[in-house]
Amino acid sequence: MPARIKTTVRPDYGARIEQLRARLKRKKIDALLVSKPENRRYLSGYRAPDHGINETSGLLFIPVRERARLLTDFRYKLQAEEETSLPVTLYQKGVLALLGDFFGQGNIRRFAFESHYTLHSFGLKLAALAEKHKIELVPVTDLVERQRLIKSEEEIELLRRSTALNEKVFQYIHSRLSADMTEIETAAAIESRMRQSGAEGPSFSTIVASGENGALPHAVPTNKVIGKNSAVTIDMGLVLNGYCSDMTRNFVVGTADKTYTHIHRIVRKAQLAGIAAVKPGSQMNEVDRAARKIIADSGYGKYFGHALGHGVGLAVHEAPSLSFRSRRKLKPGMIVTVEPGIYVPGWGGIRLENLVVVREDGCEVLNNDTTYLDI
Amino acid sequence: MPARIKTTVRPDYGARIEQLRARLKRKKIDALLVSKPENRRYLSGYRAPDHGINETSGLLFIPVRERARLLTDFRYKLQAEEETSLPVTLYQKGVLALLGDFFGQGNIRRFAFESHYTLHSFGLKLAALAEKHKIELVPVTDLVERQRLIKSEEEIELLRRSTALNEKVFQYIHSRLSADMTEIETAAAIESRMRQSGAEGPSFSTIVASGENGALPHAVPTNKVIGKNSAVTIDMGLVLNGYCSDMTRNFVVGTADKTYTHIHRIVRKAQLAGIAAVKPGSQMNEVDRAARKIIADSGYGKYFGHALGHGVGLAVHEAPSLSFRSRRKLKPGMIVTVEPGIYVPGWGGIRLENLVVVREDGCEVLNNDTTYLDI
Repeated sequence: MPARIKTTVRPDYGARIEQLRARLKRKKIDALLVSKPENRRYLSGYRAPDHGINETSGLLFIPVRERARLLTDFRYKLQAEEETSLPVTLYQKGVLALLGDFFGQGNIRRFAFESHYTLHSFGLKLAALAEKHKIELVPVTDLVERQRLIKSEEEIELLRRSTALNEKVFQYIHSRLSADMTEIETAAAIESRMRQSGAEGPSFSTIVASGENGALPHAVPTNKVIGKNSAVTIDMGLVLNGYCSDMTRNFVVGTADKTYTHIHRIVRKAQLAGIAAVKPGSQMNEVDRAARKIIADSGYGKYFGHALGHGVGLAVHEAPSLSFRSRRKLKPGMIVTVEPGIYVPGWGGIRLENLVVVREDGCEVLNNDTTYLDI
Repeated sequence: MPARIKTTVRPDYGARIEQLRARLKRKKIDALLVSKPENRRYLSGYRAPDHGINETSGLLFIPVRERARLLTDFRYKLQAEEETSLPVTLYQKGVLALLGDFFGQGNIRRFAFESHYTLHSFGLKLAALAEKHKIELVPVTDLVERQRLIKSEEEIELLRRSTALNEKVFQYIHSRLSADMTEIETAAAIESRMRQSGAEGPSFSTIVASGENGALPHAVPTNKVIGKNSAVTIDMGLVLNGYCSDMTRNFVVGTADKTYTHIHRIVRKAQLAGIAAVKPGSQMNEVDRAARKIIADSGYGKYFGHALGHGVGLAVHEAPSLSFRSRRKLKPGMIVTVEPGIYVPGWGGIRLENLVVVREDGCEVLNNDTTYLDI
């Protein structure tokens, strides 16, 4: 009899809100409005995405002394009630009118909102409303994010599953890829396979860049045919149970030439050096430097212009950033990508990306896929 | 010999920038920072999407007296140079540092930025920088949008092509749909077909909702099998040459029952009444009311909670809104969706959506597809 596979991990949303409330109290904040979709989902389980920042599918209103609620509109009522155990309040005349009602009850003196996911234009209207009710506004930027920065073992498990499924999709496509497919066809096949495999969708627009196009780190797939003996960069990730994966592989459809192999090996060496530097207490810029030095020493320093990596969780890009400018330190439970690259205009580019968890004694690489890694 | 088909329509970006400059001059604005991706594309042709509002892929800096430029970072250099004829300036230490350089040159007294696509947090930093340089900040909300509101014949042609391709994809999938497919499989097949057909991608996450799920106007596809004799709502759109399409069809896989046919006919009647009201001079709320009245008179008034329609162009949701609250008037060249719906919790929902251009003498429906419309 096969071992029973635990398929769902249900986060304790109540505990997360309580933890947040404790921090609000310390900051003497009476209520917080959560607008950022990942924060909303982290605290409530509500999954609806926003259609852009100016079309919210809902906000969490978290007073310190009363019950938290999800504010949304008619269109999302059923979904909201299904996905969260919080009470759902519908706004019919917009969020501001509803906030005006809350403000009018007189329990709020200091009201916080997410400055990094609130439009300047909405901020102006909120300021006018707060002034009317003599409420002090407190723009916050990393209150919920800081809570999300250190992942629980449950979250790490979800990221592991997301990564495993992402690798399965990659390997499926890799084994079926032929030189006469276009970049767009390949990207479409990947995203289609993701959904068929049970992912909520891609965690970002899949990058498939062949030949010279590989020199664009954020290449958008084109109608270019990949072509025989051509190098291909595939940067892909999916969302599973809300958690994102993010992985980049480079390989040649056919036979690699010497330049390709040479550069690929440098990038892989840089990646391994970066991963080796991931441990509690390391500064972000130290980790970046460990990888960057390998590339610079090989003479390709000017062809690696972006940061070494970024955090991944409910968002595909989140804190911390393995940036050459950051002196913050890694802590156990943080998750980062390690993704050095060399991009040579007119030739192409190679980037390799894995997901790494900081552990008490160093780190753990969440990836198992080794396709073409150690050529 | 077949007629030559004109496949590309190249907008005159220079003329668009000049038109914008004239408006900036009238408002005594010395320079405008354009952050919204659709506005950026409208004025420059630069296509890169943003990975969320906090990860811009570039901004347009448009001084009144000097040449406009595209500001971006290393990752987008090649794409930017390829897609726009504007000079490209890279920022290495972030946008604000570069703006500080521009401000330091002393030519700018009044500096405008897009308040509705600028984060509150960025606004705070920008305000500090402006204060340092004694520059007055002017938040604007619809400067470029107002220019985009009235579509040129070229733009209408691009929207027509986007709609035609979207219908082709819909018909392809519709003819192959079977009752044992899940909502997710259907949505994946649609988006995959879009890309194979040459679309840049879907213009929003494709909605496939069957049975009861149809009661959620913004349903996210699930693993539910569609099922025999089940109603299906498909709301889909794609991006072609930057321009979005958006269409909703409802049909039954199998045999429709009487309730379904009854409600479908009411929605279609409401849609036709809405379309008949689309003409120059009509107030937005009048058009909404024309359709809403049909639904209310049939006793389903409380099951139609959203606005009748929205503008479509480089963005899938843009001005104007056919809202029951808006008294603005339609003008020739505006494009709106007309999409009434009836959503009954526990039963399901029906929405029908077409794209309509306001013409001097009334309107023109861009859709040709009639699948299941007049049952």
